[in-house]
Amino acid sequence: MTTKDDIEEVLSTYDVDRISIAVLASHSALQILHGAKKEGMPTILIATPERKAFYENFSHLIDKTITVGSWRDICRYDIVERLQGVNAIMVPHGSMVEYVGPECLLNMRLPFFGSRRIMEVEASSKKKMELLRSGGIPTPKELSLNEDFEDLVIVKLPGAKGGRGYFVAKGRKEVQERLSGKKEVIIQEFLTGTRAYYHYFYSHVFKRLEILGMDIRYESNADSLGRLPMKGIEPTFTVVGNIPLVLRESLLPKVMEYGSRFVDATKGVEEDGIAGPFCLESIVKEDLSIVVFEFSGRIVAGTNIYTNGSPYSWLYWDEPMSMGRRIAREIVLARERGELGEILR
Amino acid sequence: MTTKDDIEEVLSTYDVDRISIAVLASHSALQILHGAKKEGMPTILIATPERKAFYENFSHLIDKTITVGSWRDICRYDIVERLQGVNAIMVPHGSMVEYVGPECLLNMRLPFFGSRRIMEVEASSKKKMELLRSGGIPTPKELSLNEDFEDLVIVKLPGAKGGRGYFVAKGRKEVQERLSGKKEVIIQEFLTGTRAYYHYFYSHVFKRLEILGMDIRYESNADSLGRLPMKGIEPTFTVVGNIPLVLRESLLPKVMEYGSRFVDATKGVEEDGIAGPFCLESIVKEDLSIVVFEFSGRIVAGTNIYTNGSPYSWLYWDEPMSMGRRIAREIVLARERGELGEILR
Amino acid sequence: MTTKDDIEEVLSTYDVDRISIAVLASHSALQILHGAKKEGMPTILIATPERKAFYENFSHLIDKTITVGSWRDICRYDIVERLQGVNAIMVPHGSMVEYVGPECLLNMRLPFFGSRRIMEVEASSKKKMELLRSGGIPTPKELSLNEDFEDLVIVKLPGAKGGRGYFVAKGRKEVQERLSGKKEVIIQEFLTGTRAYYHYFYSHVFKRLEILGMDIRYESNADSLGRLPMKGIEPTFTVVGNIPLVLRESLLPKVMEYGSRFVDATKGVEEDGIAGPFCLESIVKEDLSIVVFEFSGRIVAGTNIYTNGSPYSWLYWDEPMSMGRRIAREIVLARERGELGEILR
Repeated sequence: MTTKDDIEEVLSTYDVDRISIAVLASHSALQILHGAKKEGMPTILIATPERKAFYENFSHLIDKTITVGSWRDICRYDIVERLQGVNAIMVPHGSMVEYVGPECLLNMRLPFFGSRRIMEVEASSKKKMELLRSGGIPTPKELSLNEDFEDLVIVKLPGAKGGRGYFVAKGRKEVQERLSGKKEVIIQEFLTGTRAYYHYFYSHVFKRLEILGMDIRYESNADSLGRLPMKGIEPTFTVVGNIPLVLRESLLPKVMEYGSRFVDATKGVEEDGIAGPFCLESIVKEDLSIVVFEFSGRIVAGTNIYTNGSPYSWLYWDEPMSMGRRIAREIVLARERGELGEILR
Repeated sequence: MTTKDDIEEVLSTYDVDRISIAVLASHSALQILHGAKKEGMPTILIATPERKAFYENFSHLIDKTITVGSWRDICRYDIVERLQGVNAIMVPHGSMVEYVGPECLLNMRLPFFGSRRIMEVEASSKKKMELLRSGGIPTPKELSLNEDFEDLVIVKLPGAKGGRGYFVAKGRKEVQERLSGKKEVIIQEFLTGTRAYYHYFYSHVFKRLEILGMDIRYESNADSLGRLPMKGIEPTFTVVGNIPLVLRESLLPKVMEYGSRFVDATKGVEEDGIAGPFCLESIVKEDLSIVVFEFSGRIVAGTNIYTNGSPYSWLYWDEPMSMGRRIAREIVLARERGELGEILR
Repeated sequence: MTTKDDIEEVLSTYDVDRISIAVLASHSALQILHGAKKEGMPTILIATPERKAFYENFSHLIDKTITVGSWRDICRYDIVERLQGVNAIMVPHGSMVEYVGPECLLNMRLPFFGSRRIMEVEASSKKKMELLRSGGIPTPKELSLNEDFEDLVIVKLPGAKGGRGYFVAKGRKEVQERLSGKKEVIIQEFLTGTRAYYHYFYSHVFKRLEILGMDIRYESNADSLGRLPMKGIEPTFTVVGNIPLVLRESLLPKVMEYGSRFVDATKGVEEDGIAGPFCLESIVKEDLSIVVFEFSGRIVAGTNIYTNGSPYSWLYWDEPMSMGRRIAREIVLARERGELGEILR
């Protein structure tokens, strides 16, 4: 498992003035590349052959493309060595976690801007909820098939991701029938209320938590069902895209508080805790209480809305500041201060 | 009750070159502070102790914080005097109306950018609808419990605000049952159609009405119900946030017309009528007719979407123009022209 | 019918250094005017008397207004001559197609930035679907009243536009009852999934397809129905406005591919194919497949969201680039290169 010492060792071989940002060709890569160029950093795109042609439309944002036969090739020694050779810092995103799996993530000898240990937690629904609870963040009630219940619940199957692998059911009996023997599921009370996803950035350089945006996930088919109320179609929750959102200002102190609690909680998982972007994923109930049902320990795709800055980022920065650019800015600032070791994981 | 003469008197004691903008720490304060700084104006934040920590994240936008034990303390003579001492112009917003009540609002001896008499109207659902109707703006049909009806209606309880205190019912019998004796309610036909909220700014400096943005309110739990059509959950309308919107361009002349009618109607309530921001809150029906069911006689939180300008504000201004900045710009322009007295209330 | 030679002939009489952009006062006119001014081009607004007052609010964007008694007057020889006299390039939009009809569109002797032959196709639901299919773009299954079916379907009546003239029904029997004899309808399977509308720009100058934005149409009353699930109201689909959207980045290669196929398909309709803006209108299903149910062969009103650039346009351009401005930019670039003939139709 790659340790902080390993990262320091790799960094010591780097030409720090020529550090580059590497990203997998998916998820929020365009935004990350765009942000890096805005901060004057060289960029490396890692792409599979079928993705290459699309990203060539944005060749002005990419200094070098490394083509891999399959995503898991990035775990190979020779690819890692090529990346080290161009002084690459990897910016992991949601697709990376999904494509390469936690083992490769943990062992890759390459500096990450973003936390590999927290992403490992993210790969397990159970550990994820435990981390949130350990921080004192309100989460949905969990139910067990060992007891009877009549509640409306949402069931997460093992490996649920991108909104797939979930279903809604009412009562233990229906859950059991639909699981047909599957184990290791998470059963949560189904909360009535509107969804809101908060994009945070924890800066070790400034020792501060920034709230850089919000979104609503746009899900297929759930977000189309209300348009035809006469039909009894089963809802599904595949994330298709994101819609911008601002929250009541009076809720922001609470959003910030839960974000801070999350930063503190991550110190139990990763030395010095999380660095950079993360997301808390919540239901805002009609009494304006906020319940967090998931987190992402890295940049979320909802930030793609804000390539030129968000309603919130403009309050901090007098220039367009996407999450991708914020990442590059943090790296540039840490380099200037000789603090790269503190922000890389 | 504070009159125009009182305001002139207070203004005569001000160092006009050092006018500052004061705002309560809620609602759209961040945007108003941000806009004021963009226009080079000093800013005063009035905060309760529990809000202070959050706003310190934006200390670069705040020149001075006045801490009050409770919101109603701003009505106290010594606080008003402190605000006068820093040449403060108060920018009232939705939370202010809610926190301090109409009496304090009307009597506070401090210049307001925004109309205290129209905000007093806003505090009464009945007067609100009368003002809209007096301007010839289409409003929903009102029903009375004195007559029988079978319509689907929306019932507003006394003190309904922020989307709370409303319910939907069908027919007189159901309304009566659910009111269980409550009086002074407003019963309106429930209109089928999509909601749209228009953000206007009436400029006395330019003698023109600007349309600076639009939004859709994001309401809990109503905006989640369509995702699970099998459930029979009672809808609630707590406003949680806002989503950006543009309207068909062919509807804009009508939107502008209703805005102008509103400006004219306010002349019956406040000398010279409204100044600055207001909002008309509407249903757009399937035949593209627009029915206005509420207004806000001051900045609305939906403008928080547009910290860096809206799709509409960019058509007027070749620079980022939030509603908060537009307010500050109007004050700066009026000061330059010696017309502060005309825009303050 | 106006040919490419006719356009060359008109262009040969133009003072190319003084080319102006002409647009009808509707749909996306404000954005087109704003974009033209940003590129330093003179602008002509063509307005009916009842629209004039509204557009005067934006007089800083308009160099000359031509008032017409009715929209179809723009087909008159004297109006066309006046437009030729100011070296006008017409930018057609959705309202233009609707207001003047395909015949006037095809015969008007004025250079268009945008494709008149493709807009003629657009006026026919049947030809529209054929063009999409000829490009190998996935489209919804079509059903015929000659065969029995039980499917949930969407029925498009002749002349359906702006979301009006559609209804949803289940099975042949219900369709037949509701049509009560109407012929020439299009019956498509009703697809369950979320809607997404992609804004493309095909640049002949750069020989590249750009994806400049996305939106969700906001429809009355369909987008309000989910908020009150107990009611059995018939959905209608009148387009009222637009909401911003970004898509999962992993879907973008497919979106780009379908856009390219569309560009290729248009070469069967118009010499050299489409130039400039167009839109594919899709359902994203829960398996993340994309089915295109309509297109617009010209600028769509959803681009009005992005007056100051979209999440995607910022990836291409290091300056605010609306679709309106992109149009003007293409004209300016083509003029510089002496390639105006290639982009005008």
